[in-house]
Amino acid sequence: MKTFETVMRVQYYDTDKMQVVHHANYIRYFESARTEYLREEGIAYSEIEKCGVQIPILGVNAKYHVPAVYDELISISCRIVKLGFATMEIEYEIRNSETGELHVTGRTRHGIVDENYKPVALKKKCPAAYEKLQQLYKRDKEADE
Amino acid sequence: MKTFETVMRVQYYDTDKMQVVHHANYIRYFESARTEYLREEGIAYSEIEKCGVQIPILGVNAKYHVPAVYDELISISCRIVKLGFATMEIEYEIRNSETGELHVTGRTRHGIVDENYKPVALKKKCPAAYEKLQQLYKRDKEADE
Amino acid sequence: MKTFETVMRVQYYDTDKMQVVHHANYIRYFESARTEYLREEGIAYSEIEKCGVQIPILGVNAKYHVPAVYDELISISCRIVKLGFATMEIEYEIRNSETGELHVTGRTRHGIVDENYKPVALKKKCPAAYEKLQQLYKRDKEADE
Amino acid sequence: MKTFETVMRVQYYDTDKMQVVHHANYIRYFESARTEYLREEGIAYSEIEKCGVQIPILGVNAKYHVPAVYDELISISCRIVKLGFATMEIEYEIRNSETGELHVTGRTRHGIVDENYKPVALKKKCPAAYEKLQQLYKRDKEADE
Repeated sequence: MKTFETVMRVQYYDTDKMQVVHHANYIRYFESARTEYLREEGIAYSEIEKCGVQIPILGVNAKYHVPAVYDELISISCRIVKLGFATMEIEYEIRNSETGELHVTGRTRHGIVDENYKPVALKKKCPAAYEKLQQLYKRDKEADE
Repeated sequence: MKTFETVMRVQYYDTDKMQVVHHANYIRYFESARTEYLREEGIAYSEIEKCGVQIPILGVNAKYHVPAVYDELISISCRIVKLGFATMEIEYEIRNSETGELHVTGRTRHGIVDENYKPVALKKKCPAAYEKLQQLYKRDKEADE
Repeated sequence: MKTFETVMRVQYYDTDKMQVVHHANYIRYFESARTEYLREEGIAYSEIEKCGVQIPILGVNAKYHVPAVYDELISISCRIVKLGFATMEIEYEIRNSETGELHVTGRTRHGIVDENYKPVALKKKCPAAYEKLQQLYKRDKEADE
Repeated sequence: MKTFETVMRVQYYDTDKMQVVHHANYIRYFESARTEYLREEGIAYSEIEKCGVQIPILGVNAKYHVPAVYDELISISCRIVKLGFATMEIEYEIRNSETGELHVTGRTRHGIVDENYKPVALKKKCPAAYEKLQQLYKRDKEADE
């Protein structure tokens, strides 16, 4: 899975007394990576919000392989694995940036809603973003085959 | 699912600019509830650590139904749904304390390891805690039937 | 300083790899205590927001004495030490709930602003809350003398 | 103040329902910047820990000027303003990366301690790091004059 990678350094405040990254913080890393991924592809989430659209999380799962430690450089790759009318799914891999050792894998499922949390067609509310997401989805899918 | 409930109030710092609890924070609420659940049953996690045992998370999943908001009182129920040689699974429900409206459901899968992250038999390292977990697991299972 | 105390338990996710509470989290504890203090006195912050008023922080300072540890019960006391036209200052003490050992002391300085971050007279926008804050301020001041 | 700058992007999870960065998170930004500053100068905090030395915070203060918002690129500058036997003070400025608008200023005061939280002479325990900190302190001081 090599579609997109963002590199981050594990912060002190991300660790807990088990001496490793607290498990809930990987869910935050997913979000950081997802945002960078979309921005990199020309889809700034702040722009989507300006269309009156939000992309809240409907579900998340994460599988913890080996913990990441303080000061470590980690790479987070992500790709769109589903794109529906008003839903989207993204997959993630968190690895050590240098060794490639696998830390965490996961997936988030998103709704596409307006400011009242009602499902909306992104295609209508934010056609430019929709177009790019479609292209991205196709590209990621082909990369995978 | 009524085995155990802990009540918490949603803090300002738990919210994000979508005006609701940030999704990663529910994973923290799971942890708070799990800790209280075990403590309530006479199994303080700090005591388990004194046996040289840690119970790291191997996996988590969460399904977000309706977002919780600032200042809301929420109830988190949890129960043990699997107890193996060196693994354990716990299920959670987060609801509004007053109306019972369902916010989030989820499950965490845990390993039972020593200080070098090697799987250990809790039964040997920390027999008192093991005994109580067994009783808890049986009780939660019966409550469910 | 005995005006008001809220009791909390240190969570696992509050700790860092130094095995103690991460220093930024005490600033969050200040906020939790401040909210409970005001609520206890009949001033729910969510009610103030409904008047179109926000009370953002203009400044904070904290002095760290002895670190708090995982699973510890801590008491946070707070009291209003200044109340001006559109500003307020609150002082905090975080102690071990049982031994009274002092962990952290601090102070926050707040503005009172409308939704556009312009200073407003709480007295006009939210007279009930203003009246209560005044009483609280006087009581805390007398308690101190 | 131009000694060192680290650039970060404000994350969604850093914001709160006031639509801006939660005030406690700037204290975390201070830490990220401090770590990068020291690393950049050849003093990795993880290396200091390997000498058996920790540099906990004894005190912090922050003054909030204008809030930073989601997705904003911010620059955090920092410099050593005091370096004593077993203490150190660092000053920070957080600005918008592009406009230079001032968000937050602050200062942290640190102890230099061993694993039992006893003050230690960094000069003895970790002479290489001490030497570099001295040079840094002098350079920052001269830059300021």
